[in-house]
Amino acid sequence: MVGIYSPVPQNIPEKLFYSLFALQHRGQESAGIAYRRKNKIAAYKDLGMVSTVLARYLTGERSSRVGIGHVRYSTHGGNRIENAQPVVVDCNKGKIALAHNGNISNALALKGDLVAEGSIFQSTSDTELLLHLIARSRKEGFLDALTSVLSSIEGAYSMVMIHEESLVVVRDPLGFRPLYLGRGEGMVIAASETCALDILKVRDYREVEPGEIVVIDEKGERSLRLQKAPVSAKCIFELIYFSRPDSMIFGESVHMMRKRMGAALAETDSVSGDIVVPVPDSGNSAALGYAERSGIPFEMGLTRNHYTGRSFILPTTSERELAVRMKLHPVRAVIEGKSVILIDDSLVRGTTSKILVRLLRDAGAREVHLRLCSPELKWPCYFGIDIPTREELISNSMDPGAIASFIEADTVRFLQLPILRKCLEDPGGYCFACFSGNYPVDVPVSRREIK
Amino acid sequence: MVGIYSPVPQNIPEKLFYSLFALQHRGQESAGIAYRRKNKIAAYKDLGMVSTVLARYLTGERSSRVGIGHVRYSTHGGNRIENAQPVVVDCNKGKIALAHNGNISNALALKGDLVAEGSIFQSTSDTELLLHLIARSRKEGFLDALTSVLSSIEGAYSMVMIHEESLVVVRDPLGFRPLYLGRGEGMVIAASETCALDILKVRDYREVEPGEIVVIDEKGERSLRLQKAPVSAKCIFELIYFSRPDSMIFGESVHMMRKRMGAALAETDSVSGDIVVPVPDSGNSAALGYAERSGIPFEMGLTRNHYTGRSFILPTTSERELAVRMKLHPVRAVIEGKSVILIDDSLVRGTTSKILVRLLRDAGAREVHLRLCSPELKWPCYFGIDIPTREELISNSMDPGAIASFIEADTVRFLQLPILRKCLEDPGGYCFACFSGNYPVDVPVSRREIK
Amino acid sequence: MVGIYSPVPQNIPEKLFYSLFALQHRGQESAGIAYRRKNKIAAYKDLGMVSTVLARYLTGERSSRVGIGHVRYSTHGGNRIENAQPVVVDCNKGKIALAHNGNISNALALKGDLVAEGSIFQSTSDTELLLHLIARSRKEGFLDALTSVLSSIEGAYSMVMIHEESLVVVRDPLGFRPLYLGRGEGMVIAASETCALDILKVRDYREVEPGEIVVIDEKGERSLRLQKAPVSAKCIFELIYFSRPDSMIFGESVHMMRKRMGAALAETDSVSGDIVVPVPDSGNSAALGYAERSGIPFEMGLTRNHYTGRSFILPTTSERELAVRMKLHPVRAVIEGKSVILIDDSLVRGTTSKILVRLLRDAGAREVHLRLCSPELKWPCYFGIDIPTREELISNSMDPGAIASFIEADTVRFLQLPILRKCLEDPGGYCFACFSGNYPVDVPVSRREIK
Amino acid sequence: MVGIYSPVPQNIPEKLFYSLFALQHRGQESAGIAYRRKNKIAAYKDLGMVSTVLARYLTGERSSRVGIGHVRYSTHGGNRIENAQPVVVDCNKGKIALAHNGNISNALALKGDLVAEGSIFQSTSDTELLLHLIARSRKEGFLDALTSVLSSIEGAYSMVMIHEESLVVVRDPLGFRPLYLGRGEGMVIAASETCALDILKVRDYREVEPGEIVVIDEKGERSLRLQKAPVSAKCIFELIYFSRPDSMIFGESVHMMRKRMGAALAETDSVSGDIVVPVPDSGNSAALGYAERSGIPFEMGLTRNHYTGRSFILPTTSERELAVRMKLHPVRAVIEGKSVILIDDSLVRGTTSKILVRLLRDAGAREVHLRLCSPELKWPCYFGIDIPTREELISNSMDPGAIASFIEADTVRFLQLPILRKCLEDPGGYCFACFSGNYPVDVPVSRREIK
Repeated sequence: MVGIYSPVPQNIPEKLFYSLFALQHRGQESAGIAYRRKNKIAAYKDLGMVSTVLARYLTGERSSRVGIGHVRYSTHGGNRIENAQPVVVDCNKGKIALAHNGNISNALALKGDLVAEGSIFQSTSDTELLLHLIARSRKEGFLDALTSVLSSIEGAYSMVMIHEESLVVVRDPLGFRPLYLGRGEGMVIAASETCALDILKVRDYREVEPGEIVVIDEKGERSLRLQKAPVSAKCIFELIYFSRPDSMIFGESVHMMRKRMGAALAETDSVSGDIVVPVPDSGNSAALGYAERSGIPFEMGLTRNHYTGRSFILPTTSERELAVRMKLHPVRAVIEGKSVILIDDSLVRGTTSKILVRLLRDAGAREVHLRLCSPELKWPCYFGIDIPTREELISNSMDPGAIASFIEADTVRFLQLPILRKCLEDPGGYCFACFSGNYPVDVPVSRREIK
Repeated sequence: MVGIYSPVPQNIPEKLFYSLFALQHRGQESAGIAYRRKNKIAAYKDLGMVSTVLARYLTGERSSRVGIGHVRYSTHGGNRIENAQPVVVDCNKGKIALAHNGNISNALALKGDLVAEGSIFQSTSDTELLLHLIARSRKEGFLDALTSVLSSIEGAYSMVMIHEESLVVVRDPLGFRPLYLGRGEGMVIAASETCALDILKVRDYREVEPGEIVVIDEKGERSLRLQKAPVSAKCIFELIYFSRPDSMIFGESVHMMRKRMGAALAETDSVSGDIVVPVPDSGNSAALGYAERSGIPFEMGLTRNHYTGRSFILPTTSERELAVRMKLHPVRAVIEGKSVILIDDSLVRGTTSKILVRLLRDAGAREVHLRLCSPELKWPCYFGIDIPTREELISNSMDPGAIASFIEADTVRFLQLPILRKCLEDPGGYCFACFSGNYPVDVPVSRREIK
Repeated sequence: MVGIYSPVPQNIPEKLFYSLFALQHRGQESAGIAYRRKNKIAAYKDLGMVSTVLARYLTGERSSRVGIGHVRYSTHGGNRIENAQPVVVDCNKGKIALAHNGNISNALALKGDLVAEGSIFQSTSDTELLLHLIARSRKEGFLDALTSVLSSIEGAYSMVMIHEESLVVVRDPLGFRPLYLGRGEGMVIAASETCALDILKVRDYREVEPGEIVVIDEKGERSLRLQKAPVSAKCIFELIYFSRPDSMIFGESVHMMRKRMGAALAETDSVSGDIVVPVPDSGNSAALGYAERSGIPFEMGLTRNHYTGRSFILPTTSERELAVRMKLHPVRAVIEGKSVILIDDSLVRGTTSKILVRLLRDAGAREVHLRLCSPELKWPCYFGIDIPTREELISNSMDPGAIASFIEADTVRFLQLPILRKCLEDPGGYCFACFSGNYPVDVPVSRREIK
Repeated sequence: MVGIYSPVPQNIPEKLFYSLFALQHRGQESAGIAYRRKNKIAAYKDLGMVSTVLARYLTGERSSRVGIGHVRYSTHGGNRIENAQPVVVDCNKGKIALAHNGNISNALALKGDLVAEGSIFQSTSDTELLLHLIARSRKEGFLDALTSVLSSIEGAYSMVMIHEESLVVVRDPLGFRPLYLGRGEGMVIAASETCALDILKVRDYREVEPGEIVVIDEKGERSLRLQKAPVSAKCIFELIYFSRPDSMIFGESVHMMRKRMGAALAETDSVSGDIVVPVPDSGNSAALGYAERSGIPFEMGLTRNHYTGRSFILPTTSERELAVRMKLHPVRAVIEGKSVILIDDSLVRGTTSKILVRLLRDAGAREVHLRLCSPELKWPCYFGIDIPTREELISNSMDPGAIASFIEADTVRFLQLPILRKCLEDPGGYCFACFSGNYPVDVPVSRREIK
């Protein structure tokens, strides 16, 4: 998610393209941009990756002052063009384009009210819901309406919006999702991660505060505040897995935080392996930390193929093993005869880990010890991370010993929650609900049930 | 536009495909279908032609009871995916898919009211407007709401809808656009023209009455009536140009009606040409009629290239002449030394006719007399036909003599309106406003201005 | 097939594009161009239609003096990229690009010799064979080698070539295929039909003589002569079916010749039908001729869909009827209750005719009389027309009465060969072998067998 | 390059697909396969990547006994479909498909002879040349001809061939390129690297010997020997850069060899950096080795984007910096304030290194020391590696100090050749010509000049 405002018109679509490209890891389902042009909001979005969907926007100069962009990561099954963002509408508050990250947890109730009053829904996205609420607000001005709507919704909802000639940036009061605001190269830019600023050489940035609404237009930049929440609820999974290692998130370097998690895991580990091997690339940083702390050599015992991820269909979907073999390759000369400490970020269903353990054993590993840099994943997320149902989460039905048997590893260990906390420079105000079940806000029963 | 209901589930998308293919001439901008499947409405639509957009729906069995399809013909400039139909929504009246032909003439006023009340608009199509109105209706049941909405809108609006498990078919009280309802091959099928029924071998059909609402579901077929209009306003341009010659429209055979127009033109014509040559294919039927009546030989002096219409960009857009030359080819052996009576359906801007006259003269024509099987086109259409502004219509600024000079023809003659009427088997209840300016309903000033 | 030489460099690929587009009916399997550029021969070819394959060549200026282009029509099954033309080679005679129409009848023997001597073949096309022969010729100069090779080959072989900076145009001594040479718009252009010259506004042209080799370069235009054949063998099927009606072929207007064939058919016909209906578009011209001569009204009782021909797969290949129904539509108001004289150009297997007769009867035809403007097709072609094996040709196993029963027509009649001859303005020097079995040259047994 | 023989027919195209996918790093220009099917050799090839070009071959069962596949890496500029492999021909030795890796160093002379004798060349590839030579050989049998041809050619030429029903595998007498022969899963498989065997779970393999010709058919496997060269000339660049780290090449583990190179570099290095950072992924293994030996911490200070490599055009080609920024991202938290030892495999032009140094400095690096795990690259390769001209190789015009200034690094050091040799387990028989200029065979002057 990215938003750009430039007082002097420039090629906004091109800037959006590069920023979204840097955020591609945050969603591969669809990509889209919207930008102000000649009193209209031009938009383009489609299913697919940034480079495929938006490449045409690199070829011509498209002068504009304000634009937003989005990559979609599906938290429900619905991979439909109707759910692609940004959504652009005409309404009584003017022309609005909106892109949104997160999940509105009271969406069903709000949608129910709107439907009862006669609203129509063309998609299942929260984005359309938000636009309905803004249009239906009795407040006259756009900002009053927006503020009023935001105080009625719950959940996680970082947003960027075009309203007429202005860029509006919003982060929810609990601050679930990261959101940064930078300034440089003649523009103001908001983005989910700092890596989207880096690619445009914007170095001067700050975090958008939880509950902050920033309006950027020709008069400059103004901040409004929603009622402050007593605590924040920063998503720990952004640091564990979701964000790019070179980004700064919640004041933490993602890479450094992961190294500390790996180190913490090593500190309390008694296994005496020969080598520390990451599952690339999600386990890289943690494995480095584990190796440094334990003194056991770091080794790239699994290499990653750069040419996967392209669109072709494997002959049978059951050949998941083949898909893994096409992506990750054990280096026999490294693995053979070794006791391998395999480091990954988290354990969801256990199916991929089981294949990896087998690959390592086939490559001659004497022992395989799986280490996860996060606690046991037991609860679904209602705030924007796609975690399967409790039934599918392996840690709900097995303890580490049983998991080890299931995936055929010698041992399996998780990083314990209190220790994970200690790895944070500033451990306050995080949401650990996927590990603990302690949700920072009340999750409506209806939402829970449909999940 | 097509809608199908089958009591026994069958491959509805395939049926929709073939019917829409037969209606391709009614719109090449976008194509789409929606059909009921497992308590949901599945939909697919995109910019482009039926065969390109929907071919994937021919490959698998997709069992369903009810579906609708649409090809879009742009009456405004906006060739955007957002305007593609059908539009599918969830609302307080249930799940609805709607496809619509025509123009709502009081759309701006209605939209203004809705916007004021807080509705959001993602497209500029009347289809979205209709769905808003249905959802916002205070009537509880869907059919009551639909009836209530229909009595508030004005203009031309043939529609097919999926509502839950039923197919709903609507024709406006003035009956601007044709709409047929057939029965056979195990299904009920509604379509804009009979040719869409022919391809599915459905022979037993009737016209949907102006102001009729037909509901088809597991209980059978029921008709509701909107308040009857004192007169109907069948679009004469459907017969002159828009419909396929093998269709029955408004009780007339399109081909036979065009032949009569050609014959009528011949009857009052004093020119003594050597051959009668149609502009293929729009002038074919009329030229046959002209030749039969006049006794002057019919000749295919212009042949048509079957490979045009594909997507490639001519080097310069000014090379319109080249585009015509790639499509229509004079047969010199036919044309040379002859006085040619060139028959076309109507004259809009005159640019293509000018090129054709030049092609014929280059091929050796001694004289070229252009004959149009319709009166002088002087007024815009507010009911679904894309006629340019009055400034662009050549008959607003020139009389036939001036037009002949402009396009370099020897003479130009139009079919006079009273004679056109006489060509109809049943001349009552037509809209001739594009020729006469006498609109059958009051056209709002605002709409006129923006046109 | 087209070749262009321009003393002053111009955008040759664009000219080739428009000319090939006009010749698209001569082959839809593959399209390609080659042109001289910076001491090299640039080439592009692919499977598919001209507009799809070559559209990119319209976007940039590509200045050149000489180029050739080709559309391929498969006379064997092999729809492979390797068989696409032009073929470009480096050899001891220099850089050569060659495009070829027709069939070399002693190809197998020649290829056998070359293979024995060590030549390799990457395709099954005669074009590659010709280039081998030229390269292997002991004659030193290119033209001497070409002349020598041409005297060793038999069959039909119109060709255009780029040799270094020159354009070379060849027509075989028997002149099977048409070939024209025009001059105008600053260039010399050779093409299979005059319609390819028309689109570039080249009006001044002559037929390339059978056995003529024309060399066009900076020094002008020179003609060489191969040994003259005692007779020529112009392909009658070019006039009956293959060429475009607006072309001049072998000194005949294709359209006028077809009209005369239709008229001749009428002259000896005793059937008293109500209407004359062509199978569009191949029967159009002849039906006009039949109607004029017989006095029975010409009617467009079958209309043709402009949107077919696009690439989508029908659900089952057995649904050939559906494919016909998607393309040709009977006009019930014309057909109903009538005795229809249906005019087509020729009868091959009879399968499509059978479907058309059924369509007409379903539309209410009282009688259907099929009339073919050509004699009974009984023999394969070894000179470039794709006619199936004798077993598949319906006229080899049935007489007209039996055919009528098989296709469920009331009667079937063919134009007799002596009468066909009389329709020609200059009936000398044609090949009628597909009707008579009298081949103008000895056809090698080996070739016959593999056909 | 891969070849498969299976005594019992199986889905050979699918096996080829997965093996070629594993070899994608060896060439991204074009991909192709050929396999024996029903007495023919079916083939498919196109420009592009394996997954794009060959995905269709995963969808259907295509039973066959023998097939070959190829990915092309352009050693000259010519990215043309004509140069894609395998090349399939008919000739006097039968039906042959050939795929070839490497460069024939006396190709120009051989081609000159062939052209003089009348051969035609459709491509600029050595593959076509080899097929000409085989066909033109006076030896009668295919294997005699092949042996005879191979003794006349010089250079690097690993090959796989289909000849009628057999698979033929060849490695040149000097053994420039790696070539492995495995057995398992019901087949015999030859491939350039062992990783292509791993993906098919083939574990039992041996190196094809320099000068060995292996023929595999229904009778089993036979080896023929070309005259043995006194020495071999294994390409050191395969180990330094080209091969995948998990492959075994020339009896060495690629990853382990690179680690030893990194360690050797550390051993003689006096710089006291804070962290060792690889240029991912080419510098990964060596950086690990450097870090282990030096005791300086290994850090992933540059992360690599997984979504690059896709096809879109940057707005200006001069924006090479942007391309690097889109692919490699410095982790500021790691880099800031540090003295960075940056490890890469080799230095060619220096342009990318210059950009990387700047990126690191922008991210706060206090010092940047570039270390290359290979000697100074000064000479072109005539045996299959695409190294630019001597003028473009930075080490020909600058010493390490000057290079450091140019790329704005603090210091630059190369691994010295004698030390590189010591890193090899078996240092005998390598070609180091790109570093030393000592070519293992005489390189024809003509070839040198055109390079």
